[in-house]
Amino acid sequence: MAKFLTNREENYSQWYNDLVIKADLAENSAVRGCMVIKPYGYAIWEKIQAELDRLFKATGHVNAYFPLFIPKSFFSKEAAHVEGFAKECAVVTHYRLKNDENGKGIVVDPEAKLEEELIIRPTSETIIWHSYKNWIHSYRDLPILINQWANVVRWEMRTRLFLRTSEFLWQEGHTAHATREEALEETEKMINVYAEFAENSMALPATKGYKSENERFAGALETYAIETLMQDGKALQAGTSHFLGQNFAKAFDVQFTDRTGKLEYVWATSWGVSTRLIGAIIMGHADNNGLVLPPKLAPIQVVIIPIYKNTGQLAALSEAAGKIKADLESKGISVKYDDRDNNKPGWKFADYELKGVPIRLAIGPRDLDNKTIEVARRDTLTKETLPIERAGNHIQKLLDEIQLNIYNKALAFRKENTFYIDKWDDFVNVLDNQGGFIMAHWDGTAETEEKIKEETKATIRCIPFDSPEENGKCIYSGKPSKRRVLFARSY
Amino acid sequence: MAKFLTNREENYSQWYNDLVIKADLAENSAVRGCMVIKPYGYAIWEKIQAELDRLFKATGHVNAYFPLFIPKSFFSKEAAHVEGFAKECAVVTHYRLKNDENGKGIVVDPEAKLEEELIIRPTSETIIWHSYKNWIHSYRDLPILINQWANVVRWEMRTRLFLRTSEFLWQEGHTAHATREEALEETEKMINVYAEFAENSMALPATKGYKSENERFAGALETYAIETLMQDGKALQAGTSHFLGQNFAKAFDVQFTDRTGKLEYVWATSWGVSTRLIGAIIMGHADNNGLVLPPKLAPIQVVIIPIYKNTGQLAALSEAAGKIKADLESKGISVKYDDRDNNKPGWKFADYELKGVPIRLAIGPRDLDNKTIEVARRDTLTKETLPIERAGNHIQKLLDEIQLNIYNKALAFRKENTFYIDKWDDFVNVLDNQGGFIMAHWDGTAETEEKIKEETKATIRCIPFDSPEENGKCIYSGKPSKRRVLFARSY
Repeated sequence: MAKFLTNREENYSQWYNDLVIKADLAENSAVRGCMVIKPYGYAIWEKIQAELDRLFKATGHVNAYFPLFIPKSFFSKEAAHVEGFAKECAVVTHYRLKNDENGKGIVVDPEAKLEEELIIRPTSETIIWHSYKNWIHSYRDLPILINQWANVVRWEMRTRLFLRTSEFLWQEGHTAHATREEALEETEKMINVYAEFAENSMALPATKGYKSENERFAGALETYAIETLMQDGKALQAGTSHFLGQNFAKAFDVQFTDRTGKLEYVWATSWGVSTRLIGAIIMGHADNNGLVLPPKLAPIQVVIIPIYKNTGQLAALSEAAGKIKADLESKGISVKYDDRDNNKPGWKFADYELKGVPIRLAIGPRDLDNKTIEVARRDTLTKETLPIERAGNHIQKLLDEIQLNIYNKALAFRKENTFYIDKWDDFVNVLDNQGGFIMAHWDGTAETEEKIKEETKATIRCIPFDSPEENGKCIYSGKPSKRRVLFARSY
Repeated sequence: MAKFLTNREENYSQWYNDLVIKADLAENSAVRGCMVIKPYGYAIWEKIQAELDRLFKATGHVNAYFPLFIPKSFFSKEAAHVEGFAKECAVVTHYRLKNDENGKGIVVDPEAKLEEELIIRPTSETIIWHSYKNWIHSYRDLPILINQWANVVRWEMRTRLFLRTSEFLWQEGHTAHATREEALEETEKMINVYAEFAENSMALPATKGYKSENERFAGALETYAIETLMQDGKALQAGTSHFLGQNFAKAFDVQFTDRTGKLEYVWATSWGVSTRLIGAIIMGHADNNGLVLPPKLAPIQVVIIPIYKNTGQLAALSEAAGKIKADLESKGISVKYDDRDNNKPGWKFADYELKGVPIRLAIGPRDLDNKTIEVARRDTLTKETLPIERAGNHIQKLLDEIQLNIYNKALAFRKENTFYIDKWDDFVNVLDNQGGFIMAHWDGTAETEEKIKEETKATIRCIPFDSPEENGKCIYSGKPSKRRVLFARSY
């Protein structure tokens, strides 16, 4: 199967595109920039959703649903937000089609023009805060802890499957609080939820930190992010949590009576992750044989392949495989038994490697005689033969071991590819020749940040929460700095 | 709480609207015809989704996701489909906004006009069959059994929360088959899944049948539907499953090589249910005190309310309630303990009645002394006092009993309100004075159907699968008929 993939070391970008297509995760659609998420890719998204939804509910959140459309005027209400979001977006101007009078198919009915254009939501702060105005009157109505699973549209010029598409699926949390402190606490809580998810489920180490002002969400006073390192040395932002202060409450006039009877504006947060996480999982772990899925998010955790020469053999193997499958499923493991007769075992082996199935079991007539089974790991590509009776417990442990192993591998990779740099030449050199995370001093100005970006395409990914205070000089301007920040080129 | 609701017998329509708002299920948004589904309403939708998704997967289906946008030209490809769907829909014509040159906020950038307009999907047959063309080459690629959970938009002129909104949430299954027989089998399988769901989960008896040609889905050769009877005597279509023949395969040129090497067009089905099911649950069971939720779809199945005079009492009650809650939760029952101090028990009782929580437990100091608890049923509004130690098992059984009881009540209601009518005057009389399902003979012509609709607003809801052959005369034209069909006014 590997022969179908472009070699990762030769052309990383092509390798990624090949992989998404060949592993049957997604494809481009007839609509520019919009993807079709195919069943195997969508099954990963369902696993992501289930676990995140569990974490959101465990932290007190509930789901709701707000309209797809936002009246154009809503965007103008929050000054920074309009600059950041109201530009490249899909605009609905009419609500009816009709048959062309000259018989040339269907045309937009000019009589059905909307009085005010509707924007397909690029993010829902405006329409949600418009609703919150009617929901919030007293401190007793707070906090509101709502999440929404939805599709959003941002008219991207250059798109890539999962990483950047015009329409994408995501979740967006929108919370309302009585105090600044509580809103800040929520902002931090949710970036921690994202980091926990990235590390425990996606098996990707996540660097938590503040965004610089340049990189903040349009309308936020503070944006926290988690940054993950991809295998080509680029950073991928895998989740953001925004402290919105009272900006949206003021824009939509959402006030409440506090315990002392005083009218106050409400404090807000918002936070989101999207189908782009699937891109992170791919680029964080996959190799030249295909995907390497973390067991916790793999739609198929174990595949069983029978090796047989005739249907008599197949019947005996299917019986044995059925027992193993039932045993594993009783342990909560998802198993596929692939007895299709149109492909040879070797083809299937390669196909499930391509699809990143964590564990492959193979069983043939000799195994039946010996009461054994062959167990192959996707992460290490190693194999061992085990007594069937021990298979169930072994595989359960092995899934945990694989989850941990790929996390540790990614962690070691990040460690090897994180550089503490103090000279500009080294900074440029590392970016050009190996990539990775660069911890360097910065003078704190947007101007310097902008210049570094222009000269190197690297941006400040975040100011890590755990970056210690340390006197230094800005890598670019030489001006004094109090702590290192994380630079990288990014997706 | 009941005092806030309009009396159902006085104004059914207002009672429904009141109930949706007061029970905090949904509300109208700033965008015409689009609703906000509030957390309590969305929690019911999540329960519906979880159970349907389980049923779809148990019958071999997988989920995927296709674009929100459909190129305008796609609609013209299937002749019947364009007539039915391409009319009242949201049309995206531009992809950018800009700052107004005269400083008047933001305006649509005329330079950013799309070459071809995009339609927000009203249903996804066209964009999906455009994709299937690339997925299907051989009989080995079939069947494709895909479902999608998505939002869709139909620009409705008159909207009502849940029942008819411009944007709504739904699932749409789109399957592709090698033979006509297999596609017909799938169509029937899915209407059975919907009927099973309506009866077992929604506690609403569902009449399965064929749609008449007039009422068929645009592009279908056959539409099966389930019809449910609401308490005002109107029918509500709660699910449809369409046999699409080869219409979409021909429109999008989707052919496959069969086992004999011959090129054939693919056979199709599609099927869907939407957030309108929430409307059916409301109107099928609710009363003048509020919602009556079937336990299987109730976000909160049991609420526990402490009755106390001081915080010392509350602590003891909370301890006892905590044990009951843990016991019920260990049985898979969802429980809310409401110890809020801002409302009196009586207010809470009425509020949970309004919200249709199936079982309410109340516990006060005297109960603690007697080791008892008060158990109130929402369906019958009856109460009993039970020893605490028996509460857990009793409540588990009681939930099943309530589920069955409200189903039986709805079944009895349907029986009482199904009329076998042979005279036109009786037909009109029943419709005008009591409503209900009318089983009557029909001559099989679209013309008669149309006239009956004009004169009475009643339509043929379906030709029930189990309607026996029987010679008769059409209720309207007097022409011969072979079986009765189901007439009703409908939502």
